[in-house]
Amino acid sequence: MAVAAPARSPEAIPATMKAAVLFGPQDLRVVDKPVPKPEPGEALVQVAMCGMCGTDLKIYDGEFPLTPPYGQFTPGHEWTGRIVALGDGVDEFAVGDDVAIEAHHGCGRCDNCVTGKYTACLNYGNRVKGQRATGMTADGGFAQYAVHHVGSLYHLPKPLGYKDAVLIMTAGTGLYGLEVAGAYVLGADVAIWGPGPVGLMTLQAVRELGANSVILVGTRAGRLEMGRKLGADEIVNAHETDPVERVMEITGGKGVDLAIEASGAVEAPQQCASVTKRGGKILVVAFYPGPVSLDLSAIVRGDISIFTSRGEGGNNVKRAVSLARRGRLQCAPLVTHEFALGEIGEALRVMRERIGDPLKIVVVPPAVPA
Amino acid sequence: MAVAAPARSPEAIPATMKAAVLFGPQDLRVVDKPVPKPEPGEALVQVAMCGMCGTDLKIYDGEFPLTPPYGQFTPGHEWTGRIVALGDGVDEFAVGDDVAIEAHHGCGRCDNCVTGKYTACLNYGNRVKGQRATGMTADGGFAQYAVHHVGSLYHLPKPLGYKDAVLIMTAGTGLYGLEVAGAYVLGADVAIWGPGPVGLMTLQAVRELGANSVILVGTRAGRLEMGRKLGADEIVNAHETDPVERVMEITGGKGVDLAIEASGAVEAPQQCASVTKRGGKILVVAFYPGPVSLDLSAIVRGDISIFTSRGEGGNNVKRAVSLARRGRLQCAPLVTHEFALGEIGEALRVMRERIGDPLKIVVVPPAVPA
Amino acid sequence: MAVAAPARSPEAIPATMKAAVLFGPQDLRVVDKPVPKPEPGEALVQVAMCGMCGTDLKIYDGEFPLTPPYGQFTPGHEWTGRIVALGDGVDEFAVGDDVAIEAHHGCGRCDNCVTGKYTACLNYGNRVKGQRATGMTADGGFAQYAVHHVGSLYHLPKPLGYKDAVLIMTAGTGLYGLEVAGAYVLGADVAIWGPGPVGLMTLQAVRELGANSVILVGTRAGRLEMGRKLGADEIVNAHETDPVERVMEITGGKGVDLAIEASGAVEAPQQCASVTKRGGKILVVAFYPGPVSLDLSAIVRGDISIFTSRGEGGNNVKRAVSLARRGRLQCAPLVTHEFALGEIGEALRVMRERIGDPLKIVVVPPAVPA
Amino acid sequence: MAVAAPARSPEAIPATMKAAVLFGPQDLRVVDKPVPKPEPGEALVQVAMCGMCGTDLKIYDGEFPLTPPYGQFTPGHEWTGRIVALGDGVDEFAVGDDVAIEAHHGCGRCDNCVTGKYTACLNYGNRVKGQRATGMTADGGFAQYAVHHVGSLYHLPKPLGYKDAVLIMTAGTGLYGLEVAGAYVLGADVAIWGPGPVGLMTLQAVRELGANSVILVGTRAGRLEMGRKLGADEIVNAHETDPVERVMEITGGKGVDLAIEASGAVEAPQQCASVTKRGGKILVVAFYPGPVSLDLSAIVRGDISIFTSRGEGGNNVKRAVSLARRGRLQCAPLVTHEFALGEIGEALRVMRERIGDPLKIVVVPPAVPA
Repeated sequence: MAVAAPARSPEAIPATMKAAVLFGPQDLRVVDKPVPKPEPGEALVQVAMCGMCGTDLKIYDGEFPLTPPYGQFTPGHEWTGRIVALGDGVDEFAVGDDVAIEAHHGCGRCDNCVTGKYTACLNYGNRVKGQRATGMTADGGFAQYAVHHVGSLYHLPKPLGYKDAVLIMTAGTGLYGLEVAGAYVLGADVAIWGPGPVGLMTLQAVRELGANSVILVGTRAGRLEMGRKLGADEIVNAHETDPVERVMEITGGKGVDLAIEASGAVEAPQQCASVTKRGGKILVVAFYPGPVSLDLSAIVRGDISIFTSRGEGGNNVKRAVSLARRGRLQCAPLVTHEFALGEIGEALRVMRERIGDPLKIVVVPPAVPA
Repeated sequence: MAVAAPARSPEAIPATMKAAVLFGPQDLRVVDKPVPKPEPGEALVQVAMCGMCGTDLKIYDGEFPLTPPYGQFTPGHEWTGRIVALGDGVDEFAVGDDVAIEAHHGCGRCDNCVTGKYTACLNYGNRVKGQRATGMTADGGFAQYAVHHVGSLYHLPKPLGYKDAVLIMTAGTGLYGLEVAGAYVLGADVAIWGPGPVGLMTLQAVRELGANSVILVGTRAGRLEMGRKLGADEIVNAHETDPVERVMEITGGKGVDLAIEASGAVEAPQQCASVTKRGGKILVVAFYPGPVSLDLSAIVRGDISIFTSRGEGGNNVKRAVSLARRGRLQCAPLVTHEFALGEIGEALRVMRERIGDPLKIVVVPPAVPA
Repeated sequence: MAVAAPARSPEAIPATMKAAVLFGPQDLRVVDKPVPKPEPGEALVQVAMCGMCGTDLKIYDGEFPLTPPYGQFTPGHEWTGRIVALGDGVDEFAVGDDVAIEAHHGCGRCDNCVTGKYTACLNYGNRVKGQRATGMTADGGFAQYAVHHVGSLYHLPKPLGYKDAVLIMTAGTGLYGLEVAGAYVLGADVAIWGPGPVGLMTLQAVRELGANSVILVGTRAGRLEMGRKLGADEIVNAHETDPVERVMEITGGKGVDLAIEASGAVEAPQQCASVTKRGGKILVVAFYPGPVSLDLSAIVRGDISIFTSRGEGGNNVKRAVSLARRGRLQCAPLVTHEFALGEIGEALRVMRERIGDPLKIVVVPPAVPA
Repeated sequence: MAVAAPARSPEAIPATMKAAVLFGPQDLRVVDKPVPKPEPGEALVQVAMCGMCGTDLKIYDGEFPLTPPYGQFTPGHEWTGRIVALGDGVDEFAVGDDVAIEAHHGCGRCDNCVTGKYTACLNYGNRVKGQRATGMTADGGFAQYAVHHVGSLYHLPKPLGYKDAVLIMTAGTGLYGLEVAGAYVLGADVAIWGPGPVGLMTLQAVRELGANSVILVGTRAGRLEMGRKLGADEIVNAHETDPVERVMEITGGKGVDLAIEASGAVEAPQQCASVTKRGGKILVVAFYPGPVSLDLSAIVRGDISIFTSRGEGGNNVKRAVSLARRGRLQCAPLVTHEFALGEIGEALRVMRERIGDPLKIVVVPPAVPA
């Protein structure tokens, strides 16, 4: 890992840091800003890198709800780094520990948080009550430092590095979805639409949890090939063949037990439904540019359930760390592009315009002088 | 109960019976037909009455898949009556027992049946392998006699009567949906779209399972009033007010924990989604005349799951019988119309054209001479 | 409700209060003590009354782990009252609101709390990390005032009173156990050992959730009669008849789907196992004076699962409040004895020696002068 | 696989076969007996081999309930082989297919079978109603031929052989237990007591399902070493060290999320409880020579649940076949001893007396002359 952030004694933490701040729609500037202080139960992390996903584009475009005000808000929710200071009462971590994170920390007091569904916090966006989705409803990781609640931090064990950590959080989204959907995919036939980062991490998850077969449906040859390397038994290019027909053909007309929609294409959910067996399940881990049309009668007739996951809930980042530590999740290979924090605008453009077919882009803040 | 069918000794069973037989689309005739013989594990029931639902209209119109051939097929899946003969090995029932039924009997050997999901039998329509959905993939109850597997029969205890039995099966559909959706509605705020038989039975079910509040949405004043009597805290006439706005108003802007779609209106599923809290659930127990459009992004963002139930699976008719026996399900009051078997064509017309705003229509076969 | 606590403006809150403080084993004294201040996320409640249970005897005897130090600790975990002050950021409640409580508030950061299992908090007893089980690991309600986290407070709606609130919390223990055990008792045959407060509240819960039949087993005639009034179909006095034989007789040799052990008698768990059907469940909501002997082979052969609940987790107090509000839980009738705070020693003696066969004893602190 | 059974045309099936028949306690003789005929829904299998387990000793000793009568009954429930004839209506398999089996086939009509819990069939032992646990309540596989219901047969795909099939069924027992216990062991710390066949297969299952760490506790060095090869991170010899202390030491005092009792030692269940975290789970997949003593109070205080599995239910043999097919279950290496059918008495003695520390003993019937 070239980007190692050295452990630092608390005295060495500077008063200010470089951070990207959103001043308005598509007006993201790297400025100097006070380094945040960890409150009780929090830790201060020197950010090693921060991944970028579609949500960041929405935030950049000013289309994401409940963010902090323009002129203050630092986005970035897929970050990782090394702990440099601890708030009161924190003994779960030590200064110098590398951590993976999950974005969502719940309020801890609404009906959903109390029962463990913190990604669905009913006080979403309410900082006073303690909810913080880093990089979404609170400052995030496109900066040299970030704070987060220890309940949302996970030890990053050897031999994992920061690039792994970025994708581990993404894996948590898929794993939470699988957990919500019943978790027991052992022996199941699975089809996955969308070989982006979420789809490819979820593919590995179902593979490792014992899927009998996995079919990956996509439109970009490079991503599909990556999917094959990561464990897909069959790949289907929806630009070349009808994916529903092809999945039914591969499965001998039986369809699959579980269809996972990770593409965000508006036609994909119905395609998923069309290949799902009676009594099967659909898991949706994507967002759509418009309304989705479904043959709901057929879904009801088939006793099919539809599950969703907006993010890495249910402590699944911990599970993903464990899986990666044992060498059963390939993470770092999905990082195809790396930009310095000062180039964040260019990074966003590359993602939006798919220049060089990026899978996961990470942004690296400048090293802190010792 | 005026329509009591007297217990009969097996010798008294005639060789032929009156039964409605579908000879082609919209060509349903009452003819003479051999009384079926119960195979091992089956019972022969003298039908006391048979309810009618929307599926029967599809069957009558020739639009329902996997039915037996024209010229042979007797529809009718909501029947009840008294056992008059037993197949080999049956000791769960005695001749003279009154029974409620569930329509679906699975093959017992596919992956779904083996694991208890028999309404989703993967051998649906395969008589040879043992699947039979009475009145759909096998002969049903628009007849003087019908056979069924004992695994799909339930004792009808005092003080319940045949009209209760017809609706108990309908209740099973809602209860199975609730079970699939997690079953624990105690303390939940619930909204139900569609005050037809399924909606009204499901309303009572969520009421009895301890819903904190129940809002019923519909378009027909009479049905809404019936819903109020059966336990709805609030009723909303969607012809008079925007149901989404009204449900949000009633719930103080919070929405509901569980939205149940039992109306079959194509706009209703999205309305359900619009009133469901983050982390909440949607249960669909209806069929639609066309595609349904959903804001699936919002559903994913809200960590909302969608469950479905095509019918009364999971042994839930047994549960419904128990609830009704203790006086906690009002069933017979939903039977608004009664027709003789010979008038079945008229009965279908009354249902289709909603003449007299029927809730549940039952068809009564002629008494068997002693 | 005779013991109404008038709403008070924050200014009127005195600096000190009367509170029972444990100075050593069996050395509980009512002394003056500072009124606690609500921290952010907390509320200060003027205690109207506080119930007493077997755990309080263990605490009094000095046998309960992880309590605050002698000389400081105020026990009492079944309290209720009126909010008189709010910590920062609390808008879920207003001064003057009556509340029911649950005892356990988790740390919000361990693996169990994050996933909603806060009664099993892995930081149990760790005040710094935020865990507080009021009256057990933090000061409780044998006092004029108590603080608690808002996540553990529930609005007490009309027509419920404080005596109801005391038992509602107890109902939460049974409901959480039922939830852990799968929650769907509709149509089930149930046997309950132990007609104490937990048993009688759980009896009502299974009754309301739709149990087909409920058999109550106990040894004290008065409590069994109370159980009959609260919905038991059959009562069995284990002093007069063999309870296993009798339950099997009542069930026609079939046994029950769910056996609930709420007695704390060491022989009762095996009796529960002996009457549980293949594939059935046992729920244990009691504590034992010594080891329990089980025929575990028979339990395995029967595919029987054993669930437990130590307290009112999973937001089930909210569910219990809803059930009680609708008149479906009888609570206040279980309060058989009422003592002033100054008589708490006598109250403990009455409970321990079962003087007058007490069901639920409550302790009432002195009114605060206006 | 040396013991290949050649595919045979139905005509070639002889009228009689060699089969072990139990004539009384410890009186098992290999005799000639008619080859059974497959009924509708059944298949006739030429047995390639049949494993032996502790239950067979109980059967041999005459201590197992509900078996067929002496003089007729052929035990053996861990068999595998090749299909040689099909009953009416069977198209799931073809003559010549190799199959793995599960022992339990349910009646398909009791409350448990209807809802998928067929190992807990309420008509257990009732052949007329269709229940058959091969080798227990129906004739089994210590014979040249055996029949079974197709719902209990599974295709044995390449590259798996018969020795694999014997252990695959054993794996199904552990997998069903894991499913009953919630199925999602990803990231969990696990301890397993008992490195016998069930323990070692379950060890592999939790390993493959993503356990974070697995500790194996046993008393025989050879079995513990086998466990290490199959994926145990740590092994503990309970003859050399206190297993509870050692597990707590290994886990840094935290204990495990899931403890699995597969040893059958009466002290082991309490040891499992002693190392299980608050909110954790215990799975029991063993039988005991006498009563088991538990500190049930501590289990309740810890919110710990106890799950059991008597056998390979829930379609888990299908799942196990899939896992084995992908090379993720080592099966055949556990077969340490092979005996001819004529030596079955010696095989039983070797198992009972642990001669040569057998793991899995298989019995091979004589080849059928072509």
